[in-house]
Amino acid sequence: MMKTIEVQLGDRSYPIYMGSDCLHQADLLTRHIKSRQVIIVTNETVAPLYLEKVQTHLQQYELEVVILPDGEKYKTLTIMDKIFDALMTRKFSRNATLIALGGGVIGDISGFAAACYQRGIPFIQVPTTLLAQVDSSVGGKTGVNHAKGKNMIGAFYQPQAVIIDVEVLDTLDDRQLSAGIAEVIKYGLIRDIGFFNWIEANIEKIIARDKGSLIYIIEKSCHNKAEIVAADERESGIRAILNLGHTFGHAIETGVGYGKYLHGEAVAIGTCQAADLSMRLGWLKNTDVARIIALFKKAGLPTEPPENLKAQDFIDLMAVDKKNIDGNIRLILLNEIGKATLPLDVDRAPLLGTLNEYGRSK
Amino acid sequence: MMKTIEVQLGDRSYPIYMGSDCLHQADLLTRHIKSRQVIIVTNETVAPLYLEKVQTHLQQYELEVVILPDGEKYKTLTIMDKIFDALMTRKFSRNATLIALGGGVIGDISGFAAACYQRGIPFIQVPTTLLAQVDSSVGGKTGVNHAKGKNMIGAFYQPQAVIIDVEVLDTLDDRQLSAGIAEVIKYGLIRDIGFFNWIEANIEKIIARDKGSLIYIIEKSCHNKAEIVAADERESGIRAILNLGHTFGHAIETGVGYGKYLHGEAVAIGTCQAADLSMRLGWLKNTDVARIIALFKKAGLPTEPPENLKAQDFIDLMAVDKKNIDGNIRLILLNEIGKATLPLDVDRAPLLGTLNEYGRSK
Repeated sequence: MMKTIEVQLGDRSYPIYMGSDCLHQADLLTRHIKSRQVIIVTNETVAPLYLEKVQTHLQQYELEVVILPDGEKYKTLTIMDKIFDALMTRKFSRNATLIALGGGVIGDISGFAAACYQRGIPFIQVPTTLLAQVDSSVGGKTGVNHAKGKNMIGAFYQPQAVIIDVEVLDTLDDRQLSAGIAEVIKYGLIRDIGFFNWIEANIEKIIARDKGSLIYIIEKSCHNKAEIVAADERESGIRAILNLGHTFGHAIETGVGYGKYLHGEAVAIGTCQAADLSMRLGWLKNTDVARIIALFKKAGLPTEPPENLKAQDFIDLMAVDKKNIDGNIRLILLNEIGKATLPLDVDRAPLLGTLNEYGRSK
Repeated sequence: MMKTIEVQLGDRSYPIYMGSDCLHQADLLTRHIKSRQVIIVTNETVAPLYLEKVQTHLQQYELEVVILPDGEKYKTLTIMDKIFDALMTRKFSRNATLIALGGGVIGDISGFAAACYQRGIPFIQVPTTLLAQVDSSVGGKTGVNHAKGKNMIGAFYQPQAVIIDVEVLDTLDDRQLSAGIAEVIKYGLIRDIGFFNWIEANIEKIIARDKGSLIYIIEKSCHNKAEIVAADERESGIRAILNLGHTFGHAIETGVGYGKYLHGEAVAIGTCQAADLSMRLGWLKNTDVARIIALFKKAGLPTEPPENLKAQDFIDLMAVDKKNIDGNIRLILLNEIGKATLPLDVDRAPLLGTLNEYGRSK
């Protein structure tokens, strides 16, 4: 059983294939390869599990493989140069196709490499974590981290296709699964209360990796993401709501050092902070905030900021986040569960209230 | 006296201003700046000459300046990181404007930095060499070199405006002026025989820096470039003719080490090689090739490949050039003076004839 969602972006439109044996269907991959040269970029964790399966479909191509170390701390310009080196050494042309086989880090770094090599070669996303499947592989945001800020160097660059095989989640560890659920909950919070309610009612089945539930949350998430991206590809407006919890979350990731928290974990904490701030601004009720925190906890996610990151650290780190216009901190908040808002300005007092008080005394 | 040519690219259209006191007109710059944050990127050679003049217009802005070392060998990802560092340290947002003040290297590297910082910030080209004014500042090709190939990492990213002040050529050394003329002659060769004839008749005045002649060649060159870019922004077809001499030229630059030849010098040699090969294929007459070589020589440019770069070196180096499709070497050649052609395939024998014999025995 396979479903397809189309991301509608004119001549940059592409399909998201999702199902339970997509990796066995050679044709899903090869129909999007335009020349004989193919490079697979993956990491040390994913390669032993799925590289051979993908390679099997590509025996008639000139194939190059780059295996990167695993982890957010390797999402740098320096590591990206390894991909360029491999492409240059094989003398691959601008028609070569890059396949990103891995989680969000692999998708981001190799998508950005594809955007830059010879000013752009085609690439295909084959996400192997829940987080990459429901969020980062769709929508064309690619990039690497800078020592002073996450995802600060990158490109909007759409893939030719996204191939999601839910079976690969069998080998995902619990912590990675939970990190993905953080982004799934996000879609419910920002625009889909029905989906939020469904997740709340089915969180035990999701955590238990019930296949039908996983397929359902992937499909709902990709559907939401595809709609938002189609409406605002380059984030000049509405797409920003996808960053709920991310301004706080990026500050946490940068502040404690890349790799200590998984991205989804930092987003979970950041979303709780955003919910707390939304309550201080009079939008969310206490009971809403409690529901949100309870759901993240049931999903196995952290909900409180690290003790050693003080309010001023957050302020400093958030000031360089991409969501900021001309130095003002721009936060995505919630008017209610299922309805995100982009306040033009947030008063310093309630923001400091959240940073100093939320999750600090327990 | 100021002229404006519009590069027609839909919502990415922009003006090229050219004249003899453009740098004194603050408004040409400030009308294209959208926020209070401005970063100027320049180099050690240009900064003492023109940085203050540009800064004068920007006193009401939050201004950051990055001064890079001068030269093609610094056009790398590593040097580009200095620009990111400055932007991050100042916490500049995605509405900050980058001004590239310098020659082709500064324009390429800082245009690429603008393309990547926060996935794209606006930038303005203020080219200070003839080569940058007539070619590299217009059309949105940005990028850096890779150890194994020139301009292999980059982006198509259009500026908000190009501001060309012909007065800055007063401080340009003769070698740099000649390098720029190589690209001027190129426009005549690929599509404008009338312009070629004019350059031939006026080369002494151009070399003597007659202001009227310089303005004329800049205007004609930008006009030709703007038309080609408007027809084919991302080089899927006709834009490739702008690479006349460049496949040979890039091989020379990479083969002898970045910085030994100026880009325009390598292009001059490469264009002579392309002319020689066009003759071997029965297209150009001997007298055409002699005219072309004579004009480059009068312009103060080298016309023969370096002795230590053998035919096989050229073959190896050209195989990784961006103009190649799936490993085949793609050359831009001439059917006649004023008419470029993109042969789908070039026989190895005449190519080896050019590489082994042209400029080798004198």
